[in-house]
Amino acid sequence: MNRLLMTASTAILAACAGAQADDLSIRLKDPKQWVSPTGDDANLRHSALKQITTENVGKLVIDWQFSTGVLRGHEGAPLVIHNVQIPEQTATDKNGKSFVTRKAFTTDVMYLHTPFPNTVYALDLKDPDHKIIWKYQPEQDAQVVAIMCCDSVNRGLAYGDGKIFLAQADTTLVAFDAGAGAIGGPKRNEPLWSVKNGDPSKGHTSTAAPHVFKDKVLVGIAGGEFGVRGHITAYDVKTGKLLWRGYSTGPDAETLIDPEKTTHLGKPVGKDSGINTWEGEQWRTGGGTTWGWYSYDPELNLVYYGSGNPSTWNPSQRPGDNRWSMTIWARDLDTGKVKWVYQMTPHDEWDYDGVNEMILADQTIGGVKRKALVHFDRNGFAYTLDRVSGELLVAEKFDPAVNWAAKVDMDKNSKTYGRPLVVDKYSTQHNGEDVNTEGVCPAALGVKDQQPASYDAATDLFLVPTNHVCMDYEPFRLSYTAGQPYVGATLEMFPADRDKGDMHTGAFIAWDAKAGKIVWSNKEAFSVWSGALSTDGGVTFYGTLEGYLKAVDTKTGKELFKHKTPSGVIGNVISYETSGKQYVAVLSGVGGWAGIGLAAGLSKSNEGLGAVGNYASLANYTALGGVLTVFSLPN
Amino acid sequence: MNRLLMTASTAILAACAGAQADDLSIRLKDPKQWVSPTGDDANLRHSALKQITTENVGKLVIDWQFSTGVLRGHEGAPLVIHNVQIPEQTATDKNGKSFVTRKAFTTDVMYLHTPFPNTVYALDLKDPDHKIIWKYQPEQDAQVVAIMCCDSVNRGLAYGDGKIFLAQADTTLVAFDAGAGAIGGPKRNEPLWSVKNGDPSKGHTSTAAPHVFKDKVLVGIAGGEFGVRGHITAYDVKTGKLLWRGYSTGPDAETLIDPEKTTHLGKPVGKDSGINTWEGEQWRTGGGTTWGWYSYDPELNLVYYGSGNPSTWNPSQRPGDNRWSMTIWARDLDTGKVKWVYQMTPHDEWDYDGVNEMILADQTIGGVKRKALVHFDRNGFAYTLDRVSGELLVAEKFDPAVNWAAKVDMDKNSKTYGRPLVVDKYSTQHNGEDVNTEGVCPAALGVKDQQPASYDAATDLFLVPTNHVCMDYEPFRLSYTAGQPYVGATLEMFPADRDKGDMHTGAFIAWDAKAGKIVWSNKEAFSVWSGALSTDGGVTFYGTLEGYLKAVDTKTGKELFKHKTPSGVIGNVISYETSGKQYVAVLSGVGGWAGIGLAAGLSKSNEGLGAVGNYASLANYTALGGVLTVFSLPN
Ligand SMILES: O=C(O)c1cc(C(=O)O)c2c(n1)C(=O)C(=O)c1cc(C(=O)O)[nH]c1-2
Ligand SMILES: O=C(O)c1cc(C(=O)O)c2c(n1)C(=O)C(=O)c1cc(C(=O)O)[nH]c1-2
Repeated sequence: MNRLLMTASTAILAACAGAQADDLSIRLKDPKQWVSPTGDDANLRHSALKQITTENVGKLVIDWQFSTGVLRGHEGAPLVIHNVQIPEQTATDKNGKSFVTRKAFTTDVMYLHTPFPNTVYALDLKDPDHKIIWKYQPEQDAQVVAIMCCDSVNRGLAYGDGKIFLAQADTTLVAFDAGAGAIGGPKRNEPLWSVKNGDPSKGHTSTAAPHVFKDKVLVGIAGGEFGVRGHITAYDVKTGKLLWRGYSTGPDAETLIDPEKTTHLGKPVGKDSGINTWEGEQWRTGGGTTWGWYSYDPELNLVYYGSGNPSTWNPSQRPGDNRWSMTIWARDLDTGKVKWVYQMTPHDEWDYDGVNEMILADQTIGGVKRKALVHFDRNGFAYTLDRVSGELLVAEKFDPAVNWAAKVDMDKNSKTYGRPLVVDKYSTQHNGEDVNTEGVCPAALGVKDQQPASYDAATDLFLVPTNHVCMDYEPFRLSYTAGQPYVGATLEMFPADRDKGDMHTGAFIAWDAKAGKIVWSNKEAFSVWSGALSTDGGVTFYGTLEGYLKAVDTKTGKELFKHKTPSGVIGNVISYETSGKQYVAVLSGVGGWAGIGLAAGLSKSNEGLGAVGNYASLANYTALGGVLTVFSLPN
Repeated sequence: MNRLLMTASTAILAACAGAQADDLSIRLKDPKQWVSPTGDDANLRHSALKQITTENVGKLVIDWQFSTGVLRGHEGAPLVIHNVQIPEQTATDKNGKSFVTRKAFTTDVMYLHTPFPNTVYALDLKDPDHKIIWKYQPEQDAQVVAIMCCDSVNRGLAYGDGKIFLAQADTTLVAFDAGAGAIGGPKRNEPLWSVKNGDPSKGHTSTAAPHVFKDKVLVGIAGGEFGVRGHITAYDVKTGKLLWRGYSTGPDAETLIDPEKTTHLGKPVGKDSGINTWEGEQWRTGGGTTWGWYSYDPELNLVYYGSGNPSTWNPSQRPGDNRWSMTIWARDLDTGKVKWVYQMTPHDEWDYDGVNEMILADQTIGGVKRKALVHFDRNGFAYTLDRVSGELLVAEKFDPAVNWAAKVDMDKNSKTYGRPLVVDKYSTQHNGEDVNTEGVCPAALGVKDQQPASYDAATDLFLVPTNHVCMDYEPFRLSYTAGQPYVGATLEMFPADRDKGDMHTGAFIAWDAKAGKIVWSNKEAFSVWSGALSTDGGVTFYGTLEGYLKAVDTKTGKELFKHKTPSGVIGNVISYETSGKQYVAVLSGVGGWAGIGLAAGLSKSNEGLGAVGNYASLANYTALGGVLTVFSLPN
């Protein structure tokens, strides 16, 4: 064995960008594959497969599983790409003679990532053993884990141009040949190309999935708890060349905002809007990171995403609206130029990051069919906007517990149009530094955090995993040091209905984005930290922190199936088909912010940025460990 | 939450030793429980349950799973104890008032261990969520992992006297209250009692399961690759008091051998037999460790187990028979005194540890019904002995590849009676130091290693997981330093039929211990490193290194079922019943000696004591991660 020198030819893939864009868009239309980390460009997380129905979903059994070899929180979901060409592999015998150890073949491949150390597996879906075709083990400094705010998570891979893209925790973006893997590079375990998107010594990390739209791969940056100035960057899928970068704060030349043409609630934003709502140079360490999911509308050629909290968490320390933290962005894919912005939580006082996904689903509102964007924000409001113009159409609470704002002002003639009307009692700015503001709902992790929702066109419902958690929040003053925590608040979270003796901390709900109303809601013992999947079988899936995969009737919410996987589920459910059979897959492996107590071994109630105590009883249900579980109907 | 001070009353359990012995023996007779790490005192690993049959086993599905939160090799199996009394739990509120957080209740409990760090979970089998009743997290120095020869494995827990016993990697033996867990002690996470059985600074470690027989808990010691002098020790289940210790080598007073009464092949062994086949003081660092499974015959009041290899692995360095390494032992449970010994591999030259389990199954041989002991040794011979007298009845190769010895001399009148007739070509002693002896079969990990076999009385068959591996072995001289490796040989293993282009390294066989013949044999791609379970349903189960749980017809070996679990299986299959339903459970989590390349991240062919290259292709099938999988028939 040690006498064999393994080699692998790089898969030869079509070279022309046009052909590649086609390859990607053809695959994206095929419900049998799961080509993008969000299921599609619109972030619907919907599967058109329908072998599994409300009638038979109760019969699902575990078909196969794969332990990832990594503990801690497993977010995201694998990709499924059909008909990947796996190149021949050769070796050299003792006498230097080359021989074939594996013939070239074509198969359906699942690409699976892990949290730090961000191992990538290519699994053969047509092989009865689901053999590992290739594996990539990044070499990264383990120190990076210490600067990841909310567990050492990674939200997945992207596919495009015959390549697989991984954004490592240390912000390195790497590209592999989908067929040959990392071995496709000139050296073993070397990717086709890699670029550094940030600098961990300054607090930069990466947890978000990269997103490929046409011939670009887009990546964000995390580190809002380290004063990182957020940005989104487009790289050339072929070469890794940086094409454009748009910051969340700073001068127009760096935000790529056009003072005349970029609008906020219909009006041009004016010059240097990313600077002039900050004191002095604070925008340089002002947060607005970009660690969520991105969407793309090919007709408008616009990319949508949200920016995170302003740094620090102590609002008194950073007067002003702190633009453009907490903002929904629409950028031109080719140039990065900003079409419109909408800031949901000006001058954040609660860490209500605005990064949650933008779901591009057309909605008929007031008789008018809108190219809409629906967004369930951490701050507890669900927003429906016109995604062409950025017009605000609906903004309603999606958890009745929300109390920090009375409502969002929808009066176009009001001075506070589009702004939340903050309730003094729950304003950590109003109450001031070193004062513990009690009973703010939602908690910092919001009514929804990274766990993505799904849209089902058949019922026109949004299926939303939610948290039902409040907090006490005490801001304090601190100074910025590069690479050091820049949090500035002490938190403690608790169940929203604790006073009524009801300790549940989550719900899975169906939302009407036209009316801004909950259609049905299923209480969950714990926050639903897993992403939802709706299907044309009329079934919606999600996972729970105890470890269940659950299936409900999309229309009614009626529970049709549940099965406890090896560990708590914070991954996102996907569906795919191979060799004529529909499968439902989900990663378990408890962790994330909600599971940080288990993941990082913390036990003091206010550790883990205030989350540990609220989820302490999770330790009675599950333990760490990453496993992919794939369900199917029995033969 | 942080304001609550958790407390727990210790379960009050019957105090009289007689009652406790009864409790244990009554439970041991109940096929619905799995009370001992070996299934029973006789090491049959047989379940009398028969809801799952040859007819319906093909329908098995995964009922529930539990991720252990630990990577690396998961050996052993959980225990299942019925009707355990779980004590009330109380907490104290802000005002110091005590209130009940959990009422006392009675339930069926599964006790699950992990490899280092040796976490113990008590799981509620009657709770639909299989909630964690208690958990114990030992505090041990992680340095111990570096002195564990063959992965950081642990082979399980023992039950007795209402207590659960764990032998930690660092040789600490701890006792918990079965109902209250470690919290039952005066401090949180403190066991009822604990004792140090060895000293890791001298190379002592613990991997074996403790064994409770009557009112004693017996533990062994590992470290044969560090020159550890093996011993077996009996502690009082109540107090942890050391009752007796019997060494494998040394003076009679320490081996507990009686020169007149203790016999070897029918003859008294004479004075200081544990010294006089060693040069000088070599017996002090001479190995003979005791890291395997133990059996007990209550009628004879004898305990049976095997001792491991003499240290070092370089035979030229330790002239003589090196007694009593490589020996089957029969000791009186109450006194530790030795009734008889049988040394299988005098003066070992290949690391053929004799620790494999002794199966106590009566056999009719030559028309005479014998209280027999059947043992599948690493050296490739399967031995049938009379367990009353230690008389050798049968000794035959259980893999035709075995070539180091022509046979075991069965001629009672021969000078070499009972000894293997070593073939010079494969004698690393004969060929000498610094000479690479090529093509020795089996390899050091034997035709069978720790993976225990099962006995099915209905068919009178022994179901044996086996290896089919050979090696090159080059001994070299080295000197002893306490706590440092004392191996003295370089190895490289390879598939036994490599020259024929057949790369399989395992088989699962059925053995006739009367005739000494293989009845049927199923080839396996990889060594079968998992323990077998036969059942009264006519089905035998075992796991594979790729991760399959397999079920075969005990009579014919016909494969009836297979299902790939999340990781490679090196655990032992068990069966239990709760609430009227039969379950089959197995730990997956690849590792052990065969899986050491994956477990410890080694890649050079001769690393991992020569095992890495032989199992390199395992990396194409599976990755690390401990998960318990429980199968059942669909409702
Ligand atoms: O501000 C940031 O840069 C940043 C990064 C991350 C992250 O990268 O995971 C989270 C958050 N903030 C955050 O506020 C948050 O609630 C959160 C939850 C999680 C998670 O994976 O469970 N990550 C993050
Ligand atoms: O000599 C010893 O003390 C000793 C200890 C152990 C162990 O404790 O696991 C093994 C061995 N030897 C050994 O020779 C061996 O083949 C082996 C395999 C395994 C395993 O768990 O896979 N352990 C051990």
